[in-house]
Amino acid sequence: MSTSPRTLPLSEIKQALEALPHWSIAEPTVDCPYSNIQRHWMGPSFLKTFSIMTSIAMIAEKMNHHPYWSNAYRKVHIRLTTHDAKGITDLDIALAHQIEDILAKHTP
Amino acid sequence: MSTSPRTLPLSEIKQALEALPHWSIAEPTVDCPYSNIQRHWMGPSFLKTFSIMTSIAMIAEKMNHHPYWSNAYRKVHIRLTTHDAKGITDLDIALAHQIEDILAKHTP
Amino acid sequence: MSTSPRTLPLSEIKQALEALPHWSIAEPTVDCPYSNIQRHWMGPSFLKTFSIMTSIAMIAEKMNHHPYWSNAYRKVHIRLTTHDAKGITDLDIALAHQIEDILAKHTP
Amino acid sequence: MSTSPRTLPLSEIKQALEALPHWSIAEPTVDCPYSNIQRHWMGPSFLKTFSIMTSIAMIAEKMNHHPYWSNAYRKVHIRLTTHDAKGITDLDIALAHQIEDILAKHTP
Repeated sequence: MSTSPRTLPLSEIKQALEALPHWSIAEPTVDCPYSNIQRHWMGPSFLKTFSIMTSIAMIAEKMNHHPYWSNAYRKVHIRLTTHDAKGITDLDIALAHQIEDILAKHTP
Repeated sequence: MSTSPRTLPLSEIKQALEALPHWSIAEPTVDCPYSNIQRHWMGPSFLKTFSIMTSIAMIAEKMNHHPYWSNAYRKVHIRLTTHDAKGITDLDIALAHQIEDILAKHTP
Repeated sequence: MSTSPRTLPLSEIKQALEALPHWSIAEPTVDCPYSNIQRHWMGPSFLKTFSIMTSIAMIAEKMNHHPYWSNAYRKVHIRLTTHDAKGITDLDIALAHQIEDILAKHTP
Repeated sequence: MSTSPRTLPLSEIKQALEALPHWSIAEPTVDCPYSNIQRHWMGPSFLKTFSIMTSIAMIAEKMNHHPYWSNAYRKVHIRLTTHDAKGITDLDIALAHQIEDILAKHTP
């Protein structure tokens, strides 16, 4: 049985976000009840936006680590936190890097 | 050029929702700035939930009418409103029925 | 009731393909029983390949005109023909251009 | 480093297919160069067929084991083989069971 991942101290999160310039730390909300890292992005069309979401969904399922996200037309707001740890862990940093890899192909 | 669809009066919305028992009227929020009809649902797994979202995305693109929605693991919250009309129109009722048709196959 | 689209004469298909350099004319096979235009492409990974397929599927559904296609890991073979006309029509040329628009974003 | 999975002897494949009544053994072809197990299915619409394909794609990516498949409108032909082993292995049997689990929800 695996142990829960540990939440990262704030100093480590800040250091990790230096390599993730589009991401910031966010407080818990009704929709995402733990501290999280978040970013917004906008695709060129709904079609391409949803296609990118499909890529992210496949990665999330592969990692067994799923986002809190919302979409309206071309806009996406994505938040990452680790449910079992009730906060931000290495899993969130790793998934954020994979998402950046996908988004890098789709932004000018 | 097509004219904007007209927003429905409350009495018509209530009547339409009699055939849509999972849907309710919701006030504007930061995420969805107009009156809307909404429902929540939960899929059996992330994988199946996202697959259902793919069906809904394809219908939305076909209708050129897109939802405001959020997802967290197996949970989805979906809100429908008509941006051009700044409120609820026949388009939202029509899309809600199509979504029900999809969800009916996936709920016990 | 709409009439069936007419099949294009060979000279028009050849002219249309001048603007579609990755596409060629193909004979009917067991899998695609009419003359068709085809192309092959290879994505950078299965994940991104399937994500591109999702974009194409959404466009196809929107046009109500669907491809004959096969996929193996990163490889896709796509063939376009018009079932109702039993051959190549303007619909296939139009869908091919939309597919090129998507693929252009994903190839070096 | 993991070793390649071993191909199953014919007797074991036949035994495994007793629990997979929709699947049969198929010879190599141009499109799928190794012995494989295959099935055909037909969805109720392109939209729902592609949505099911999305589920299968997500499982395949999660298992890192991908199908050889083709689609035309509502029809899908899927073949499973293990590239590294050049034939049918336990991975193919496992993926076939997961696909059946998805399809069971979508057939009458």
